[in-house]
Amino acid sequence: MEPVAAISVIPVKGMPLFRPGMSVARELLDAIHRRGEGLDDDDVCVIAQKIVSKAEGAIVHLDDVEPGARAKEIAGETGRQPQMVQLILDESIEILRATPAAIIARHRCGHVLANAGIDASNVESGEEGTVLLWPRDPDASARAIRDEITAISGKRPAVLIADSMGRAWRIGTTGAAIGCAGLAVLDDQRGRGQDLFGRTLQATVIAVADSIAATAALAMGEGAEGTPAALVRGAGRWVSNEDGPGAASGLRPVAEDMFR
Amino acid sequence: MEPVAAISVIPVKGMPLFRPGMSVARELLDAIHRRGEGLDDDDVCVIAQKIVSKAEGAIVHLDDVEPGARAKEIAGETGRQPQMVQLILDESIEILRATPAAIIARHRCGHVLANAGIDASNVESGEEGTVLLWPRDPDASARAIRDEITAISGKRPAVLIADSMGRAWRIGTTGAAIGCAGLAVLDDQRGRGQDLFGRTLQATVIAVADSIAATAALAMGEGAEGTPAALVRGAGRWVSNEDGPGAASGLRPVAEDMFR
Repeated sequence: MEPVAAISVIPVKGMPLFRPGMSVARELLDAIHRRGEGLDDDDVCVIAQKIVSKAEGAIVHLDDVEPGARAKEIAGETGRQPQMVQLILDESIEILRATPAAIIARHRCGHVLANAGIDASNVESGEEGTVLLWPRDPDASARAIRDEITAISGKRPAVLIADSMGRAWRIGTTGAAIGCAGLAVLDDQRGRGQDLFGRTLQATVIAVADSIAATAALAMGEGAEGTPAALVRGAGRWVSNEDGPGAASGLRPVAEDMFR
Repeated sequence: MEPVAAISVIPVKGMPLFRPGMSVARELLDAIHRRGEGLDDDDVCVIAQKIVSKAEGAIVHLDDVEPGARAKEIAGETGRQPQMVQLILDESIEILRATPAAIIARHRCGHVLANAGIDASNVESGEEGTVLLWPRDPDASARAIRDEITAISGKRPAVLIADSMGRAWRIGTTGAAIGCAGLAVLDDQRGRGQDLFGRTLQATVIAVADSIAATAALAMGEGAEGTPAALVRGAGRWVSNEDGPGAASGLRPVAEDMFR
């Protein structure tokens, strides 16, 4: 394959604040239209997890959470709110590490990240004590948003739902794919490609969706200046009409995890 | 800060094959010029580790390596060549895991990755049994390339040396920064930014250099179609005249490593 000509990430400004029941697909299309951009079948629409969660109503009041014995124990060891720890336990299938610095959990969707992805920032205004969970099934959310984009616009871009995650050995977060529809999560070149000297590539599996999510998250930004969506152009070789197996297919199986 | 307008990654085609002693800066500038592109002070030049290593002559013939007792032991346990294992030990300060699937090492520069970054692909043609090590000091290499770009062109873009790395819990590799000059490795928004509702952001440190390296590596590609350099535009807010502390400043200190 030829190298890509260029990959561009365009933040979609002017998205509204999301409330439960709002349509991410419709608001995204409206914002793209107001921006004067078009949408093509080989574009990738990157959407921040937080607006998908808000639209799906994945908001919890910490006061409504009753912490159990294990949550109280971990809260004591880590200096966290017991209600928050209970939610992390509820959202996880495994706690890998729990220290005052971080609680690293394997989310029920399989992703390993701090606090099981629960976010206390950017929840509804004035509602101290509310937190945002991940969408119930981020890959299903991506497929549903993609179908709605297609139904409204007639175009079928890929949809990638992104969240920021820490890494085991590197400081700071990068965007990663938690939900995908129509985008190759992995580009497996093992045994297929050859290097410049005709040798078979040994172990080259490129994490396409995470790579795109990383720069998209950087362009979208965090905090008050953040825009919760971006259009990615030039990655069409990894976009397909079929939704594919989703972001979950990019997770290392637990049996192969060397760092539990 | 306003959101960025857009971030674009442009692969630089037409780079030559590198041999020891060649100038990465000069060849990059020539290839950019032939492409009809200009270069600006707020651009980021992303350069694949492999061409920096080749230009610096970081090539080893496995036959020249004498494996010691520990290398032979690990080679037996993992089914690897003892010479390759000895090189991994030589290039590392710590072996985190050694299994038939992977040897995960902390490189002497501090980065944790498979095989201490040693690559058997894309070395000199016809030279079976040669492998490529990382540059001796990738941050110093980035600074030197940046200075040479400035000396030749009068422009002072940032320089990022990237390699592909695996992740603990996710399949496939993403590009990551192993050498940096003039690019913010981290954007630390803790206590500085506020979210949309005026709350102080809790723990937001964005890994800027790794985020840029990820999409750049995707655009550059692997194998025969690969281009070993890319220009990144639109990330100027993270570019500065000073070289800064380099990619090593983005590594979690060993004392804070929860996954040794």
